[in-house]
Amino acid sequence: MQRCYTLAQLTEEPGRITRRYLTAPLAEVHQRLAAWSEAIGLEPRVDDAGNLIARRQATSADAPILLMGSHLDSVPGGGAYDGVLGVLIAHALCQALGQTPLPFHLDVVGFSEEEGVRYNKPYLGSAAIAGMFQTEWLERIDGQGIAMRDAIAGFGLDPTRIASAAYDPDQVIGYIEPHLEQGPVLEGTDAPLGIVTCIVGQSRLRIEFVGEAGHAGTTPMKGRRDALVSASRLIRRVRAIGRSADDLRATIGRVEITPNAPNVIPERVTLSLDVRHAEDAVREEAVAAALAEGKRIADSDGLQFHVLENSAQKAVCMDPQLSELLARSAAEAQITTRHLPSGAGHDAVPLSARFPVAMLFLRHPGGISHHPDERVEAGDVAIAIDVLTRFVHLLAAQQSSATQGGTSR
Amino acid sequence: MQRCYTLAQLTEEPGRITRRYLTAPLAEVHQRLAAWSEAIGLEPRVDDAGNLIARRQATSADAPILLMGSHLDSVPGGGAYDGVLGVLIAHALCQALGQTPLPFHLDVVGFSEEEGVRYNKPYLGSAAIAGMFQTEWLERIDGQGIAMRDAIAGFGLDPTRIASAAYDPDQVIGYIEPHLEQGPVLEGTDAPLGIVTCIVGQSRLRIEFVGEAGHAGTTPMKGRRDALVSASRLIRRVRAIGRSADDLRATIGRVEITPNAPNVIPERVTLSLDVRHAEDAVREEAVAAALAEGKRIADSDGLQFHVLENSAQKAVCMDPQLSELLARSAAEAQITTRHLPSGAGHDAVPLSARFPVAMLFLRHPGGISHHPDERVEAGDVAIAIDVLTRFVHLLAAQQSSATQGGTSR
Repeated sequence: MQRCYTLAQLTEEPGRITRRYLTAPLAEVHQRLAAWSEAIGLEPRVDDAGNLIARRQATSADAPILLMGSHLDSVPGGGAYDGVLGVLIAHALCQALGQTPLPFHLDVVGFSEEEGVRYNKPYLGSAAIAGMFQTEWLERIDGQGIAMRDAIAGFGLDPTRIASAAYDPDQVIGYIEPHLEQGPVLEGTDAPLGIVTCIVGQSRLRIEFVGEAGHAGTTPMKGRRDALVSASRLIRRVRAIGRSADDLRATIGRVEITPNAPNVIPERVTLSLDVRHAEDAVREEAVAAALAEGKRIADSDGLQFHVLENSAQKAVCMDPQLSELLARSAAEAQITTRHLPSGAGHDAVPLSARFPVAMLFLRHPGGISHHPDERVEAGDVAIAIDVLTRFVHLLAAQQSSATQGGTSR
Repeated sequence: MQRCYTLAQLTEEPGRITRRYLTAPLAEVHQRLAAWSEAIGLEPRVDDAGNLIARRQATSADAPILLMGSHLDSVPGGGAYDGVLGVLIAHALCQALGQTPLPFHLDVVGFSEEEGVRYNKPYLGSAAIAGMFQTEWLERIDGQGIAMRDAIAGFGLDPTRIASAAYDPDQVIGYIEPHLEQGPVLEGTDAPLGIVTCIVGQSRLRIEFVGEAGHAGTTPMKGRRDALVSASRLIRRVRAIGRSADDLRATIGRVEITPNAPNVIPERVTLSLDVRHAEDAVREEAVAAALAEGKRIADSDGLQFHVLENSAQKAVCMDPQLSELLARSAAEAQITTRHLPSGAGHDAVPLSARFPVAMLFLRHPGGISHHPDERVEAGDVAIAIDVLTRFVHLLAAQQSSATQGGTSR
């Protein structure tokens, strides 16, 4: 936890934690983590997507690989634990393993980019490791006009070699990510740890009401086509839709108004809509209901209603075997756990397309993430390290018996 | 109308009309108008607040003064007629008067600043002429960091001499402003002209809901304290309040959301509230009702509710004698008029504190102002010129008989 605090000082903005993809503070984080990992016998390298990977060697060079870690970038004004805690827990686990030989390499991965802040595209690092990095992303431009291709080269990496960051699915046993819950579910229970069942599916929409501008002083109330009033009707309906099914989330977080002047009736209001649920059908039904409401409200108010964007990420299931092994490890340590879905996205989303993935959540006091008030209990971190150490031992035993079984066949 | 179009080309932004206080395009407008006014025998000058004043001399130098005109600045992306039309109607009227001697000076005023765009302070030019310009305004800074004092000096004027722009109330007969209605009231009638009864009182507020931010994916719907949802409830109630009394206007035109991100529950929503009515008590009651609703909604939703700003401008009455003379002039020309309040503010607001004021509205097709689509019918402009010419003749006759009455006493 002290090291989380140390890394929190490495930021683009003094006084708050902001560490975007391939910025100077990310390079400093790499230096610190590389030094710490070498001190416990790991072998660090940075791949061409900017991921920091520190390997704990297996007993044989051609052994399979277990990936464990989290991301090293942050949102603007983020917290001290989001991402980095997972990497440092993996370090602590390697320390706890000592010289124990393992039948697999343990690669501690610090993903270079999960939040998607700099290039408005999340999961860049994990997409590269999954072999799903798309070359056209290199042309994306950040807020300062810097193309991703140039940012990668400027970080001392080779943008033409990103494909080399990919792991061979045949060699990877799986990916395990310890992470803060970023929500309040575990806080109300006696479970310091949660075993993630799935990462919920997410729909992201931009929708728009178009009415008619007018002078706030001269235009009679009757006959106004005020886009903000219609949007307000939908905002309330979206909350009702969000409450209509268990564990559904429906949020309007961003509003843009044209012209947004105190003395002008709003002509145009654009709303974001974020809908999430573990079951894709429930989510899709909620989106359809919200769009139908928007259309109905616009029709009844005499406005236009447009869907500007509508993209979706289906729910991602965690691997049952790895998750079961996490549960067994916790039971062995006599730790109460709870199974829960992750409402937030994680690097496990792209990785799940190629490798078995599992996630271990840490209880999150207050549930506030992406914020300086983010906290975690030291006792819960110790428990997570203990459970994951047991997990690695159990997995090693499983792998050994499987290999022996294999050779005996 | 051709001249309105010519002046519309003098703008800070190619392709749209934007002419703020003391900018280069305003100086060009002054040059054109000065040349046009000299050609019809007027004597132009620019006072130290940047108002362009073109005098039609009375028969005697110490005669009283009739002020007529409107403003020369525009909102960003404004229309071709707002303001300048009133000045050019006054020019046309002077042309129509020919060599007719008048017992008063007719000062055609092009106010330098009515909209308040550059220094977020309206009525700078008319405040100077009313002797109400406050020296501390000179310290205001515009969006480019230029103090008003420096902008005035940069325009070739003397900021220490603004008080000299004031007219002596004892010398001023009154102020008459022809202006577009900027609303749809006359459009639905057979009246090309409106006689303004009053400029409605206006309350300007900034109010705020403060809830709690949270991750859109992880925070359960139940227990959310979403500031946007509460604001939406108020937005709908404000519309209902606006509809609760005849001629009341209640508008929320500006919304600011923190953090305004698609995946974060809105923590803070700040709303503008603009309430207008000709009767101050009706307006004040509506404001009180809106604030009570805001408080009630915040309490029931578990949010905080703050009133950040609450300023008001009382309704301003037009002078009954001058308004009656406008009505007589229209009747003489067999023009149907309608009496109506002005929902928008005008330079008559500060001037009314010192001088009798009256306003003549021109029918406004579509009622759309502060917008490139602003239009006016040439026939209605001709009628306005005719009616105002008759008005000046009637006023001259009144003044002459009053003077004669005076000497006979």
